[in-house]
Amino acid sequence: MNNLLAAVDLGSNSFRLLIGRADSDGMGQVYPVDRMKETVRLAAGLTPTKELDDAAVARAVEVLQRFGERLRSFHPDRVRAVATNTFRVARNVSEFLPLAEAALGFPIEVIAGREEARLIFSGVAHSLPPSPSRRLVVDIGGGSTEFIIGRSFEPELMESLYMGCVSYSRQFFPDGIVDAHGMKQAELAARREVEVISRTYRRSGWKEAYGSSGTAKALGAILVESGFSESGITRKGMDLLKQRLIKMGTVDRAELAGIKHDRSSVLPGGLAIMSAVFDELQIDRMQTADGALRLGVLYDLLGRDASHDKRDDTVRQFMARYEVDVAQAMRVRKAALAIFARLVPGDQPGIEELIRMLAWTAELHEVGLSIAHAAFHKHTAYVLENADMPGFSRQDQKLMSLLALGHIGKLAKLQPLVRNQEQWMAILSLRLATLLFRRREDSDVLPISVSAQGSSIIVKADSEWLAAHPLTDFTLRSETSEWSKIGFNFELLEH
Amino acid sequence: MNNLLAAVDLGSNSFRLLIGRADSDGMGQVYPVDRMKETVRLAAGLTPTKELDDAAVARAVEVLQRFGERLRSFHPDRVRAVATNTFRVARNVSEFLPLAEAALGFPIEVIAGREEARLIFSGVAHSLPPSPSRRLVVDIGGGSTEFIIGRSFEPELMESLYMGCVSYSRQFFPDGIVDAHGMKQAELAARREVEVISRTYRRSGWKEAYGSSGTAKALGAILVESGFSESGITRKGMDLLKQRLIKMGTVDRAELAGIKHDRSSVLPGGLAIMSAVFDELQIDRMQTADGALRLGVLYDLLGRDASHDKRDDTVRQFMARYEVDVAQAMRVRKAALAIFARLVPGDQPGIEELIRMLAWTAELHEVGLSIAHAAFHKHTAYVLENADMPGFSRQDQKLMSLLALGHIGKLAKLQPLVRNQEQWMAILSLRLATLLFRRREDSDVLPISVSAQGSSIIVKADSEWLAAHPLTDFTLRSETSEWSKIGFNFELLEH
Repeated sequence: MNNLLAAVDLGSNSFRLLIGRADSDGMGQVYPVDRMKETVRLAAGLTPTKELDDAAVARAVEVLQRFGERLRSFHPDRVRAVATNTFRVARNVSEFLPLAEAALGFPIEVIAGREEARLIFSGVAHSLPPSPSRRLVVDIGGGSTEFIIGRSFEPELMESLYMGCVSYSRQFFPDGIVDAHGMKQAELAARREVEVISRTYRRSGWKEAYGSSGTAKALGAILVESGFSESGITRKGMDLLKQRLIKMGTVDRAELAGIKHDRSSVLPGGLAIMSAVFDELQIDRMQTADGALRLGVLYDLLGRDASHDKRDDTVRQFMARYEVDVAQAMRVRKAALAIFARLVPGDQPGIEELIRMLAWTAELHEVGLSIAHAAFHKHTAYVLENADMPGFSRQDQKLMSLLALGHIGKLAKLQPLVRNQEQWMAILSLRLATLLFRRREDSDVLPISVSAQGSSIIVKADSEWLAAHPLTDFTLRSETSEWSKIGFNFELLEH
Repeated sequence: MNNLLAAVDLGSNSFRLLIGRADSDGMGQVYPVDRMKETVRLAAGLTPTKELDDAAVARAVEVLQRFGERLRSFHPDRVRAVATNTFRVARNVSEFLPLAEAALGFPIEVIAGREEARLIFSGVAHSLPPSPSRRLVVDIGGGSTEFIIGRSFEPELMESLYMGCVSYSRQFFPDGIVDAHGMKQAELAARREVEVISRTYRRSGWKEAYGSSGTAKALGAILVESGFSESGITRKGMDLLKQRLIKMGTVDRAELAGIKHDRSSVLPGGLAIMSAVFDELQIDRMQTADGALRLGVLYDLLGRDASHDKRDDTVRQFMARYEVDVAQAMRVRKAALAIFARLVPGDQPGIEELIRMLAWTAELHEVGLSIAHAAFHKHTAYVLENADMPGFSRQDQKLMSLLALGHIGKLAKLQPLVRNQEQWMAILSLRLATLLFRRREDSDVLPISVSAQGSSIIVKADSEWLAAHPLTDFTLRSETSEWSKIGFNFELLEH
């Protein structure tokens, strides 16, 4: 078996591709073997109404085509592409994403800020020597900044704040002009964001602080090479750099040693944010770290491979947090999977992922009961769509939310949201499973058999069994009208 | 002091008024002194699209005017009017409710199903002799049926299911025609509802079963007076009654002893539901109980009087369940109340209730953090609007949800929802309080003073203090643009 894995990181400033080789001795190590990086500056293509403009889309698609060429021989299970803040906030993401996926040739997951933070910490932790000490990792991206405190490979605190070097440079240093007022406003705005988490983070404490993003590496290089700092990023070094930039009025004229061309336009925003982070978290010195998000993605992929899917942990945690009736969840899960297997062939490409989503939704379908009994399926759908669920992408969460919403009640409202026949079959499986186990009693055999062909759904049940279970009979018959409203022909046959 | 209390119960079948005298020795007893009952059959006025039709509105308004006349001398603090299922489901309730309130002369709270269940159990428990045994109370209303298991005055299980004697009679026995098929379909539909809770309820168990509604009392009277049962409601008695009704084809022709005229049209639906309840919960005999919802309302009112507001307990439970940072909640609460007191005179009529809502919202404003950090105020608003919150009416919850939604972020989206200047001032108080305590640190004095007049808001702060707190300064200044978007002039003055 080929043991190459690939991570694609679609950031707000740059897109990156990292190819790694999983060690063959199963020790859970990944060795990077190839890298690509392109500065796309996607966040700069956001209009004031948060639409991604055509030029930015074109830049992104072009880069993704190149990445796609490099990845052509990869099996989809060995590639994970994640997209971060600009994808999270762009209002037209649903139009843009299919273009990007077509160009890359692989699905792209839009991940939440905390999920980004978790993956960053994993990447940094795997790139640093082992240490028993608590570490702080700060990752200033193009559109968001992640803060993680953790020990070894375990994140303890994770936050993602809505500020980044691209967005701040555009907002506070238009046309690349750097002045004292803009710098002060940018720092205050950033401090105001960090203020919300500063107390919790300072209380937790850490021994070593690391900066893992392009901004941190650029600052580290400039400060050292310009003689503003002996090593790493320091508060004093940043003050000297600020003075230099303000004096010269732009980054270009400041003629800085150590700066790379593609960094100059986003340096002022990144510097303001880093200064604010130092002030609010009372940091004096920070080291730069390799291996950020993309390395974390590779390790996550390796984990999924080794059947340690992070998402299983998250689902278990959610079942506990929301006090789910585990026995019932497992009854429904088992029945839903059995029914689905009869409806959709398991060798259909991409079907494994839908089966996983169906299984997790079955486990979590009663989460909303913790909010209220009435219309609990809507509350489940709300939580699954909005909660921080480590390991899950936004699209994962949307799909689970959709399945949960459809597991009971009216189907017509789902019609604009369901994408294909397989998703309808997943919904059907979950509906039948919950309907059969409404009494929350164990049962070894499924009393019905189900088949589907196009828009025809046929449920067969033994007539004696139906007569002995008038309620299930009644409920199964009421499914007919629900499914007919969305164009399916649901038949209950007795034999 | 006058020690009369009044409860108005706007049910789906009938409206009732109960006036009670609180005992003056403070033993927490209420003695009913006056009753009024009018059959309005509100649920029958629901159109297929769940709009309340004009005739039903007119019937309701007329009855409420009569009740209003009886209550004219009552202080608003001594009257509580609660509305149940038909008000919960009617789509045009927001047009109808002001008419109803004007007719009655007092505010009307639309309460959730579980809150109804809680109040019913309280009413029943107060009307029965003390007993250490677990009791089941079933209350078949016009549009919903409540199930409560509890001991002494403490409910342990509470559910409200969406089925009632008016809605079922309309659906399964149109034009009053009773036949075997309709009876079977109605029973199956009802059993299907009860099925969801039956296992939990049977597992919990009970010693005595009580029926507390008009349906239960009518059934009890008919079965005994017609000789179908020796005492109470029995399964066998109901079977005999069903046979009689089916044989005669309508309730009217069945010439039943013990039936009251205004019950006949809703008897078949109520009978089908009660039979289903007996089957699903495996009940053999049920006693009828006096003192349902309206008596519970009177005791709740007595409790609020004695400053044992049930809502305080609920808020405390929610703070624990959602792991709220209590110290921060209390800081924000204290500051918000202090600011509000400067903005709105405390002697303004009706203002105490808004102050209570502000205090509770301050305590719960971070509930949404348990779902996700990003946009947590929206998650708080979702939970406060949708959760089962014992003691709170729907309107209470909507208002708290609104205040939570406005405590941070954009104000423009609130404009269509905020009803008056006082609510804006509550939002302002909560915004300033959370803004000042963003660092989660204690502080004894408020560093600002606030005043408001019409659309002008003036915040004064010491200039030295502002200079020493640049972040608060910055954040206060950004409030100006938020408030200007909704037509307020927010000024920060230094002195």
